[in-house]
Amino acid sequence: ATLGITTQRAFSSSPACLLHTREMNEEQLSSLRVDQERLMRDLHYTCQWGTGERWGEAPTETGMSRLALSDTDKQARDWFVETAKELGCTVTVDEMGNTFAVRPGLSNDKPPTFAGSHLDTQPTGGRYDGILGVHAGVEMLKVLNDNWVETQYPVGVVNWTNEEGARFPMSMSSSGVWAGSIPLETAHNLREVHPGTATMASELSRIGYLGTTPSSYTSIPMAAHFELHIEQGPLLEIANKKIGVVKGVQAYKWLTIKVKGRDTHTGTTDLKSRADALLTASKLILHSHKLATANNALASTGILNLKPGSTNTVPGEVTFSLDIRAPSDDTVAKMLDLVARDFPKIAAGEDLDGLNVGCTLGLPLQVSITQDFDSPATFFHPQCIEAVTQASHAALGPDSKNLIMEMTSGAGHDSVYASKRCPTSMIFVPCREGVSHNPKEFCKEEDCAIGAQVLLQSVLRFDRMRE
Amino acid sequence: ATLGITTQRAFSSSPACLLHTREMNEEQLSSLRVDQERLMRDLHYTCQWGTGERWGEAPTETGMSRLALSDTDKQARDWFVETAKELGCTVTVDEMGNTFAVRPGLSNDKPPTFAGSHLDTQPTGGRYDGILGVHAGVEMLKVLNDNWVETQYPVGVVNWTNEEGARFPMSMSSSGVWAGSIPLETAHNLREVHPGTATMASELSRIGYLGTTPSSYTSIPMAAHFELHIEQGPLLEIANKKIGVVKGVQAYKWLTIKVKGRDTHTGTTDLKSRADALLTASKLILHSHKLATANNALASTGILNLKPGSTNTVPGEVTFSLDIRAPSDDTVAKMLDLVARDFPKIAAGEDLDGLNVGCTLGLPLQVSITQDFDSPATFFHPQCIEAVTQASHAALGPDSKNLIMEMTSGAGHDSVYASKRCPTSMIFVPCREGVSHNPKEFCKEEDCAIGAQVLLQSVLRFDRMRE
Ligand SMILES: NC(=O)NCCC(=O)O
Ligand SMILES: NC(=O)NCCC(=O)O
Repeated sequence: ATLGITTQRAFSSSPACLLHTREMNEEQLSSLRVDQERLMRDLHYTCQWGTGERWGEAPTETGMSRLALSDTDKQARDWFVETAKELGCTVTVDEMGNTFAVRPGLSNDKPPTFAGSHLDTQPTGGRYDGILGVHAGVEMLKVLNDNWVETQYPVGVVNWTNEEGARFPMSMSSSGVWAGSIPLETAHNLREVHPGTATMASELSRIGYLGTTPSSYTSIPMAAHFELHIEQGPLLEIANKKIGVVKGVQAYKWLTIKVKGRDTHTGTTDLKSRADALLTASKLILHSHKLATANNALASTGILNLKPGSTNTVPGEVTFSLDIRAPSDDTVAKMLDLVARDFPKIAAGEDLDGLNVGCTLGLPLQVSITQDFDSPATFFHPQCIEAVTQASHAALGPDSKNLIMEMTSGAGHDSVYASKRCPTSMIFVPCREGVSHNPKEFCKEEDCAIGAQVLLQSVLRFDRMRE
Repeated sequence: ATLGITTQRAFSSSPACLLHTREMNEEQLSSLRVDQERLMRDLHYTCQWGTGERWGEAPTETGMSRLALSDTDKQARDWFVETAKELGCTVTVDEMGNTFAVRPGLSNDKPPTFAGSHLDTQPTGGRYDGILGVHAGVEMLKVLNDNWVETQYPVGVVNWTNEEGARFPMSMSSSGVWAGSIPLETAHNLREVHPGTATMASELSRIGYLGTTPSSYTSIPMAAHFELHIEQGPLLEIANKKIGVVKGVQAYKWLTIKVKGRDTHTGTTDLKSRADALLTASKLILHSHKLATANNALASTGILNLKPGSTNTVPGEVTFSLDIRAPSDDTVAKMLDLVARDFPKIAAGEDLDGLNVGCTLGLPLQVSITQDFDSPATFFHPQCIEAVTQASHAALGPDSKNLIMEMTSGAGHDSVYASKRCPTSMIFVPCREGVSHNPKEFCKEEDCAIGAQVLLQSVLRFDRMRE
């Protein structure tokens, strides 16, 4: 059978009180609850691998720096594989290192319902982005085992590779391959951002996670994909809500902008004889913010490299990333058009914003723009959204109406690609001040547990909804 | 005796026709001429060590990339030491790796008259900046030997360490130590610009150029210092002149600017909730150019590093270099004041230039400014300027009046520090389009030779002027 799912049931010898999800009433179902302490203990335990910058006194008050396919990512992966196996799962690693742990159900002839997220982090990331989602999945498996619960169909937990796109500059690269949206070759050949020769393929192989199972929704089908994630923005906290029911994800594109000028001496080259690639890049970055402001979009530059990099040489070449986002595809497309229209003009010396006022104009420079990544606006599946909504009410109790909010994600997630091949939705929990991609990223233990509880309930409720 | 200068004369056995500089008439003196072909052959020979980017078809049409104290710098240094020894010089290496080759004169109880420059280059530099000056010095030694010339006092050639300040970010660092202007400790502890752990001391020791002679004008005194250099700017070429008689060097300061904001997610953080260190740095760089324009000064950023460096994280920290220059100390001091006054305001969100128009204002950021290096305006010595002027007329012949120009250097040179401890002047030759710190930097063979001829004649004339 695909995925190594056999027809055996989750327990080799059924205990007297084996519970089957289809036979449980609403009360029994809702009474299956995650163990907050265990969830947090496990989460912080795996944060020993790739521990980042300290921001507080407590042992757990540090960020994370666990770049995809690094040695510490391997350690976290190994933990995931071993833990899932101990919990009775079958584990499959695909050609992108995506790791699927599956717990059999009563009928194993249909694909599993998955909970999934990622264990990689930003270079200066936190302990929750991605990590919480995988741990909540593992906690789900533990709750099912502890309570001798048997689902109708198998359930699984997936750890997707390089979701962040921080080391290999394409976010959600490996769910993208699984979905058939990114060619395997492209992803395998992605080179690490910081000068180095490693590619995703070389690093997958080095750490032993270059699996043989094709990375594809046809080889590893999913009935549904649910993802618990911190919001990474401030909206839930501001609104005093506990759960965001995520209906979709905004659109984004990643561009690389290259500015070509001329290396010259800083002491002997007057301002008008310069082709200063960094001065031009500064104007372009400012202009991108003005375009974003005018179009209700976001524009961000997170990487900038220049050459040759000497105090007394005017840089002749600057390369920088431009991440543009907006709720609608049209707005992102318009932003790209405006960038493509304006950047060469600004580099040639035109003054579109009054940026040149009072500034000596140098020689014209060249700009080239490459699109590296495109993630159109995503809309999640009504049935999954419904499962999450029901689960949220079940988890939050009587006051639940006031604690739930529907929302659109500002960040991309593996659920974007999952949603192209199976019903999908996400669950957001608030994080302190909406800060993410920062060592101080923080989600209260209680909120982590509420999120995990909603994930558990969403998967179980979806399992009951099938057919 | 200091410097290993013994009382022996340049030739162990005097040939019949030994020429003494004091006994030569103007015609005899002027007839001592450099060998253009040999000069260029030697220069291009040593450019095998650290060959840079190719820009033309001919074997010599490449730039140079010979960072201070690199393996290729060691090879060029070894050549210099061996060649000088073969030419009968005593060679001394000081604690900064400055290398002094001395050819005895008739009286060796007084310090030598030096020709000097540097063999290190920019990461994307050319074959002339510094290199020409050292080679012209070596050619001088060859001409003196070939013609059995004996000077009244010793003459020397010095190769100064890390003049460029490209690898260890303080230009003229080692002539600065020699002059007592930069503490030895400071220079030894300078760390390389591009992430690495090497310091000047560790690299001096690694390549075997951590000499034992104190790096000081008291241990290694000079009667005078003459330096031939390409202009590195366009003025001689534009004016159709062959020689620049350099009367001084403009003032400059090197600053490091650090902008502290907050790492946040590019997709979930709206523009007004950001503390984007790169957006702020872009405004500061633009503003520095506006200040430079308004004050007839130069402002340049050649290095910029940001953290954490991920496409989807708004950078929380940016560090960049700022090189400010102007002919007068007052202007440079004023520029520093303006930078110190304005940068924190701009980072805090004030709009000094209209740069914020149409741009969503984020949270306030912090700026800190460190001064790393300060080189006040330099004025060379009248007697040396006179020697260079006389030498230029002698070298250029009847039309010389029309081919000479007095000028101020835009770039710093080791002559800046030499001039603090001995009479000093410089000789400039034109370079193509004024381009320097660029692989395409180019000086015609004829112009290299004219410059070397003026250097030879300047040293000899100064030797005759002494006492
Ligand atoms: N959730 C998250 O931080 N994903 C990274 C992809 C993105 O840039 O939005
Ligand atoms: N001549 C030269 O390029 N020197 C480097 C010092 C400076 O930055 O001016």
